[in-house]
Amino acid sequence: VAEGIPGIFMNLKITLSYDGSAYVGWQRQPNGISVQEKVEEVLKKLSGSKVIVEGASRTDTGVHALGMVISFRWPAKRPGWNELARSLNALLPEDIRILKVSRVSEKFHARFNAKRKLYRYRILNSKTGDPFRRGVSWLIFRSLNVSAMNRAARCFVGKHDFSSVAANPGYERETMVRTIRMCRVIRNKDEIHVEVEGDGFLYKMVRTMVGTLVEVGLGKRKPDSIKELIRSQDRTKAGKTAPAQGLFLVKVVY
Amino acid sequence: VAEGIPGIFMNLKITLSYDGSAYVGWQRQPNGISVQEKVEEVLKKLSGSKVIVEGASRTDTGVHALGMVISFRWPAKRPGWNELARSLNALLPEDIRILKVSRVSEKFHARFNAKRKLYRYRILNSKTGDPFRRGVSWLIFRSLNVSAMNRAARCFVGKHDFSSVAANPGYERETMVRTIRMCRVIRNKDEIHVEVEGDGFLYKMVRTMVGTLVEVGLGKRKPDSIKELIRSQDRTKAGKTAPAQGLFLVKVVY
Repeated sequence: VAEGIPGIFMNLKITLSYDGSAYVGWQRQPNGISVQEKVEEVLKKLSGSKVIVEGASRTDTGVHALGMVISFRWPAKRPGWNELARSLNALLPEDIRILKVSRVSEKFHARFNAKRKLYRYRILNSKTGDPFRRGVSWLIFRSLNVSAMNRAARCFVGKHDFSSVAANPGYERETMVRTIRMCRVIRNKDEIHVEVEGDGFLYKMVRTMVGTLVEVGLGKRKPDSIKELIRSQDRTKAGKTAPAQGLFLVKVVY
Repeated sequence: VAEGIPGIFMNLKITLSYDGSAYVGWQRQPNGISVQEKVEEVLKKLSGSKVIVEGASRTDTGVHALGMVISFRWPAKRPGWNELARSLNALLPEDIRILKVSRVSEKFHARFNAKRKLYRYRILNSKTGDPFRRGVSWLIFRSLNVSAMNRAARCFVGKHDFSSVAANPGYERETMVRTIRMCRVIRNKDEIHVEVEGDGFLYKMVRTMVGTLVEVGLGKRKPDSIKELIRSQDRTKAGKTAPAQGLFLVKVVY
């Protein structure tokens, strides 16, 4: 096929940011508009033929990205691939912005080559809220105990079966084992950020971790109880799934 | 009238913040929903009778507020005025947030007693834009010369007839003379902020000042030309009115 012939196609990598509020997530879905659809639509317009892009992560409905990475084959005969960022930004809606376009080796694949992903969850811990952070944080009125949350967060670090914090455990046939490299809770003025870095994540895993950590922050659950929760592999023992609008895919490491 | 009898009514002052995107501005208008309407609606619900609030500033359609101040008479027999912030926030939409409620002297009036108002205009000076600052800044791709803008900004300071930077000059019968205490341009990472403090502002005055300063920043107009512009009292000689979504009423000084 044409894609295999060097010189006809080149492999491009794009880093992009999007406000996920209006989308069903990164990946194409039958039930609504995805970011993937928007990006492929514009790439088709620019290249003259269908382009299929691979995203490093799916991101759920309403989840945001500061540094999503995607890769795709681009017709080498189209001039100005290095001007592609500007052309894409001119055609894409303002809630999707292309930050960087670079040419990569033929073998690079945004999903398969991703080593680690960093997510940040923003909690607005305030008695009033903020009109300008409605869509990008989870508003919690009651004061959260950050140091207890941090002790609990450390229990997630390591290689574990994360069935207890994944939606629909067993729905995907594959293993529920993932390795979390870092999980910490930081206070940033009136916000509390939960940062999680790992080699991969199960469906709604970060948001269920956050929902559980918030219960620790409210004193409803002990920091140490996380260890037991993980061992149980029982989703009913975890907290509620935190709302999508607080979650950001910050970066993908290769 | 009842309002005049001490003990029956008390005078309250509220500081509030709002995202102006969905509103025709602070003040009631026949052509759409105003922030005033939303606040009065909820106050009526809480007090059981009609409440009329006075705002320190009008703010145009789409303009935001970080610290708008309003005052109104509140039935003294209603218990818990000091719990009013919480009650209001529970009933108001999330794009309007009550920051502070305090009891003030009978003579306090949010508009008539306002000594100075501080506005900030946010320009996002970036080649790509940012999905999360779409509604709160004016995106300008071309690099702006901040030091030239700052030299120009200083020319606005002082007591002048500001007809040249007001929409519909002469529409209001009153004087076009205002005193600008401070006008400066600051770089803040990839944003450029225009801050203006004055005793009062004409219709669209700040946004026309910003539109003119941006022409200076783009090299289309010399910093010194602002002096001549003010002397001309001719609106056609100023720049375009900057879009509403970049403007914030930061605070009102009494």
